Amino acid sequence: MDNKVFYKLSYGLYIIGSTQEGKFNGQIANTVFQISSNPQTVAISINKNNLTNEFIKASKVFSVSILPKTVPLDFIGRFGFKSGRNNAKYETVSFKEGVTGAPILLENSVAYLEAEVVDILEVETHTLFIGKVKNAELVSNEEPMTYAYYHQVKNGTAPSVSSNTKKDENTASGTTVDDKLKKYECSICGYVYDPAKGDPDSGIAPGTAFADIPEDWVCPICGVAKSQFTEIN
Amino acid sequence: MDNKVFYKLSYGLYIIGSTQEGKFNGQIANTVFQISSNPQTVAISINKNNLTNEFIKASKVFSVSILPKTVPLDFIGRFGFKSGRNNAKYETVSFKEGVTGAPILLENSVAYLEAEVVDILEVETHTLFIGKVKNAELVSNEEPMTYAYYHQVKNGTAPSVSSNTKKDENTASGTTVDDKLKKYECSICGYVYDPAKGDPDSGIAPGTAFADIPEDWVCPICGVAKSQFTEIN
Repeated sequence: MDNKVFYKLSYGLYIIGSTQEGKFNGQIANTVFQISSNPQTVAISINKNNLTNEFIKASKVFSVSILPKTVPLDFIGRFGFKSGRNNAKYETVSFKEGVTGAPILLENSVAYLEAEVVDILEVETHTLFIGKVKNAELVSNEEPMTYAYYHQVKNGTAPSVSSNTKKDENTASGTTVDDKLKKYECSICGYVYDPAKGDPDSGIAPGTAFADIPEDWVCPICGVAKSQFTEIN
Repeated sequence: MDNKVFYKLSYGLYIIGSTQEGKFNGQIANTVFQISSNPQTVAISINKNNLTNEFIKASKVFSVSILPKTVPLDFIGRFGFKSGRNNAKYETVSFKEGVTGAPILLENSVAYLEAEVVDILEVETHTLFIGKVKNAELVSNEEPMTYAYYHQVKNGTAPSVSSNTKKDENTASGTTVDDKLKKYECSICGYVYDPAKGDPDSGIAPGTAFADIPEDWVCPICGVAKSQFTEIN
């Protein structure tokens, strides 16, 4: 099994939003597809450890905002940097409540849809939510961001898939890298966890192997769970 | 609800293959995403009317071949032109049987994965298959085809989404188009059904309104079901 195959699947980049007891939360995701067109239904996949998962299960509603190619990295960071458990992610962004009550982004958005959950399927580390779309509107004329474009263009700060592939090739000739030194890449935003540096902002000391990071740690850039990381060397 | 929102979701383009009683079938699809990475699981969505759906339910296995940007339109046509019920789609293409028994494309492929079905969810017109990946390998160094690129580049034969959007704008000022004359576009390949022309090759006479086409009719280009079509004027 060659895990690089999974990088060849094509995705967009989205903010999935939901609500619970008057609070709003949202997160970066790439896993959204339409199932049927009459009625309009969609599927999304959300890590079980994420607060957005908890909110969707409580309120049975979610929104999908489609990010444009022009979305600034710090906007993505705002939605991912630290878990929503400690941050009110929607405090500093322009949004409205949709007909379902889910938060709808009014900036950095190509279009949105909002849906009521009609089915739920637990699959390993993630939950598949099936939503019947209650409303969908265009927000701007901008071109949607794709996952591939995000990796290509943002590689000043987020290493591109291709550069990591090259690293794989360089170490494929039999070099054994000590487990303690193995780097792991976030499959959502491309952030690389380097044990030599750790993640001091999140309390992970330099020298900590990826395996020794607590399970509730999240990607410091986009906020997804540890299980979204893949070994890259 | 603005149905144009659904065109803003980003996808790749894939051939989903399966097997039943020694036979192979496959079809074009854009709805594939990874759910979890440990273990590797994926979700696909397949129309209930399609033969591939029947094969996957029988054999509990499927393959996903990732099409490259360079895939010729006639190759896509071979996998979609007419239902597999009357055609042996794999007869003229290079493929092998994977470890699951599902057919693996050896031409026009960036990479493939093959999976065993671990869960099934029926959603309106479609079935969601959840697959645990048993094998995944790269086939070529080509860039994956995206749904957006397919629409942009192939618009000599498949009208692009943007040109249809313009048509929408032109008729948005109150022009009422008689239902009998309404055109419908295939959301997978961009083929436009024009009632004035009908689809004589499939026995649909010129002058037949889209609503009057039998439910078992499939897109003459890519083979998906009638429910994948959206009104465009």
